Amino acid sequence: MMEEKSGSLGARQHISTRFAEELEAIKNSLLEMGGKTESQIRLATEALLSGAGDTAEEAVQMDRDINQMEVEIDDQCARIIARRQPAAFDLRLIISIAKVTTDLERIGDEASKVAQMALKSTVRLPVRVAENHTTALATHVSNMLRRALDAFARLSVDAAVRVMLANKDSMEDYDAGMQLLEAAIRDNPATLKSCMDQIWALRSLDRIGDHASNIAEQIVYLVTGSDVRHMDEATLLNLLDVSTDS
Amino acid sequence: MMEEKSGSLGARQHISTRFAEELEAIKNSLLEMGGKTESQIRLATEALLSGAGDTAEEAVQMDRDINQMEVEIDDQCARIIARRQPAAFDLRLIISIAKVTTDLERIGDEASKVAQMALKSTVRLPVRVAENHTTALATHVSNMLRRALDAFARLSVDAAVRVMLANKDSMEDYDAGMQLLEAAIRDNPATLKSCMDQIWALRSLDRIGDHASNIAEQIVYLVTGSDVRHMDEATLLNLLDVSTDS
Repeated sequence: MMEEKSGSLGARQHISTRFAEELEAIKNSLLEMGGKTESQIRLATEALLSGAGDTAEEAVQMDRDINQMEVEIDDQCARIIARRQPAAFDLRLIISIAKVTTDLERIGDEASKVAQMALKSTVRLPVRVAENHTTALATHVSNMLRRALDAFARLSVDAAVRVMLANKDSMEDYDAGMQLLEAAIRDNPATLKSCMDQIWALRSLDRIGDHASNIAEQIVYLVTGSDVRHMDEATLLNLLDVSTDS
Repeated sequence: MMEEKSGSLGARQHISTRFAEELEAIKNSLLEMGGKTESQIRLATEALLSGAGDTAEEAVQMDRDINQMEVEIDDQCARIIARRQPAAFDLRLIISIAKVTTDLERIGDEASKVAQMALKSTVRLPVRVAENHTTALATHVSNMLRRALDAFARLSVDAAVRVMLANKDSMEDYDAGMQLLEAAIRDNPATLKSCMDQIWALRSLDRIGDHASNIAEQIVYLVTGSDVRHMDEATLLNLLDVSTDS
């Protein structure tokens, strides 16, 4: 590899091709990790609503793979920096990737919590109060996650801002589900425990949406230098207008 | 700065001193960010229990400063890597710092949520059911945070493992508080809304403990290469025995 450190034009192009390939490999690992967390969210939610213990166990077990993927991707990030000494933007991109793996790992934790609720609830949960809203929210946040990672792979500010806007929409299913569950508790306080389990599951799904949104915020900051946390909807919509992305 | 890139021994020592100074500056920024989040946790909990709206507002406002600190420390991390091209361990350390800033920023989000509960609750929350447990949990997780950052500054595996063990203890106050609140809902379902607000506040404080524990896990991984997530208490205690740290 030593010849790659020489300054001749041919060698530099060679470095740059190798760098591009390695960066592409890291991005693919990130998408793979994202795909794994999406499957985990789907399994965990299915388990919660069907009460299938084996599906729930499978979702819980996936957490270890996802943790391992975080460690491996972070190692890839450190190695590419050490070997290729990337320029400013690429360096920031790689540090961002190491931060995104944390969000994906935390998504795995939340999906695992949903699956654990399924394991607890199978015994004593005959009625699922907010089933439709839970399913809708799980689908919504999974989509947000897929779109956030796709936006990351393409460094698309436009797609990232759309994910952040979608997070505001996910509140509708969350709020509606919570209202049903709170009404159920008021009507029959004996259902408190099982309703609380469903409330925690809704809350975990909502957090998954927040993590997808955090990934989107990273992209916008990386590309535009704007810190878009706590921006209101109107300001976010402005970012869509100035974006060069179609 | 160009002379620092030469290979003479004197210049290399000069680089190494500069690097050590800059790294120290980043660590100090991280501790400062941690100190700010500790203050925010204290203010938010005080506001929740006293109902003081101005204290709550102050805690909510601190969130922006904390976000800004994350951005600045991440920039410092990218700059030191670009300028000093640190060796393998230091590179991993700096990437870890950029991951720790995310945990601190999320702690700020949780503290802000506690403060927002205070703003909501002041109007309609005459009785604070789990006041003692909430105060105890807030104190406990603040201490965990301070000790996690201190362990990070010293790269102490021993101190980091003790933070992870302390996270298990924090469950006692969380569980006891939750039981009181659930009993209160069962006794008087009309108190559901205000009890739920207190439940969310307990949950946010519990998350702060989780983030402190995440910081501790980073340290152990960085120093020992062991992924200590999901390790049981006995295995963690073994790490204390093998640690060279007193």
